[in-house]
Amino acid sequence: MWMDNEFLQGEMQQIEEQLKKALKTRNKTVQNALIKLQQSGGKRLRPVLTVLGATFGNYDASTVIPLAASLEVIHMATLIHDDIIDDTKLRRGSETLHSMLGRDVAVYTGDFLFTRAFMLIADIAEVKLMKDISKGMAYICDGEIDQNEQRYSKATTVKQYLKRISGKTAALFALSLASGGYKTGCSKRITNKLGVIGKDIGMAFQIIDDILDFTGSESKIGKPAFNDVIQGVYTLPVIFALNSKYKAETEAALDKMQQDAGNSLKEVLEKAGVIDKARKIAMRYVEKARSKTLELPDALGKEIILEIIDQQISRKF
Amino acid sequence: MWMDNEFLQGEMQQIEEQLKKALKTRNKTVQNALIKLQQSGGKRLRPVLTVLGATFGNYDASTVIPLAASLEVIHMATLIHDDIIDDTKLRRGSETLHSMLGRDVAVYTGDFLFTRAFMLIADIAEVKLMKDISKGMAYICDGEIDQNEQRYSKATTVKQYLKRISGKTAALFALSLASGGYKTGCSKRITNKLGVIGKDIGMAFQIIDDILDFTGSESKIGKPAFNDVIQGVYTLPVIFALNSKYKAETEAALDKMQQDAGNSLKEVLEKAGVIDKARKIAMRYVEKARSKTLELPDALGKEIILEIIDQQISRKF
Repeated sequence: MWMDNEFLQGEMQQIEEQLKKALKTRNKTVQNALIKLQQSGGKRLRPVLTVLGATFGNYDASTVIPLAASLEVIHMATLIHDDIIDDTKLRRGSETLHSMLGRDVAVYTGDFLFTRAFMLIADIAEVKLMKDISKGMAYICDGEIDQNEQRYSKATTVKQYLKRISGKTAALFALSLASGGYKTGCSKRITNKLGVIGKDIGMAFQIIDDILDFTGSESKIGKPAFNDVIQGVYTLPVIFALNSKYKAETEAALDKMQQDAGNSLKEVLEKAGVIDKARKIAMRYVEKARSKTLELPDALGKEIILEIIDQQISRKF
Repeated sequence: MWMDNEFLQGEMQQIEEQLKKALKTRNKTVQNALIKLQQSGGKRLRPVLTVLGATFGNYDASTVIPLAASLEVIHMATLIHDDIIDDTKLRRGSETLHSMLGRDVAVYTGDFLFTRAFMLIADIAEVKLMKDISKGMAYICDGEIDQNEQRYSKATTVKQYLKRISGKTAALFALSLASGGYKTGCSKRITNKLGVIGKDIGMAFQIIDDILDFTGSESKIGKPAFNDVIQGVYTLPVIFALNSKYKAETEAALDKMQQDAGNSLKEVLEKAGVIDKARKIAMRYVEKARSKTLELPDALGKEIILEIIDQQISRKF
């Protein structure tokens, strides 16, 4: 498993230390909540991708680690704001920050983390990255705004769905992998390729994440099942079902979501075979990412990127 | 009046154009709301201070204008997030963004504006300013978090109040004036002095703003009277009253705030003379700011800064 790679473990430990510093604040309540947030972990996929992308150039931990940490901090900030909107109580199996601190403090804590991310990037004195990362963050906001506009809309198209997850998730994956390469002096061609690979990994990641909302158990995915649908966020399987001969049944199942805890929706999604259909779309992104990774020059990170890509389809949480 | 100054008017027009560009987004609903937000105006004090600070160095509009605009964008973003928390419906006499778009989209629109502010700063390629502005934003978050922790607390001290407004307001005023000087190559001594003056103006500004919550009319201040107290935000006059012989009466008036629309609170604040007492504190900051401004070398902005300082005490909105 790639998590056992010695080099990566060393770097990840440094990233955790950097994160710990970045999450320091003088308010004790907020500080404790942020410590819990860090301890509850998460996959740390974004900083891992940054480190891996950086192995294609002249790797230098003193700049790669703060950069990688900044991308995780941005991710944490967006999670905090997402959880406020969706009123999510559990994340990664732990109480969410807004559930611990209340909505009000959570808004500012998210903002605070954005400022910390920018300080980390400013520390490594990289204006071009500042612009790219700001742009990436703007894409995330766009994606989230799209998601909110499409909430409870049974007319959401596959194209709209793909555009929205491209903004809310894939943009940051792309940025994570590409910025690592950029920072260590990779050519424009390789940096761009890393970006495309990152984007495809992000697309696959989010589609699988959305599928797990239907198939995963609360204990494994660390949040309540059917959370998205309850929040009116209709993802790929539902969109497929709404565009199949099971349209009427799906609509009815969505409408009585609250009463039967998703049982009839689960049934119609199974009948329509749309979970598999969505998984195939994710598989396509995985294959694109894999073939482009094989075109990359040899580097320490290449094998690990391939492992991460392959893992996307089989992951259970 | 300083607003009629020809130089400043020209610069402000450019700032409005820069703001218009910075607030561009592909989502039409958000775009319209942001256009309304810009049109509803506001005093634009922060970018004005940046322009004025910049006149103490080698003024160059091509960098000063984006910098000034970025500080207004940060201010707008924090206003949007504040209005969500306080559930404010009116701001500057216009419907607030979260009232137009809903809480959810407003959270992301605030985030989106932060990214735009950072893009502006990255565009003028200034790493040191990035750090300073990130730090300034962190202070704002700290101040807002403090304010939330102190909400409905009758034990809030004057010291806590001053610390919280120093974070939530004065830090950005300080940054606005100082960054203008810094960007145009002022000496460290002058830049620092501009920062101290900006901070004192911000302190006076916020104390007066808090007083206007009690004394202003909705039509003039553009938001409902007694809004702060209703939200549990106890400002200087209330804190003074709670520390006077009218303590019990003030407590009782706060408790029945919702029923009698603030009538008894207004009465006890008048009796206790705490509005004047708070105004005197603001006056002290004004005097400090004025004497430090007089120590500055001659520059186009010096007289205007003095006018802005003097205006703080008499302003009615």
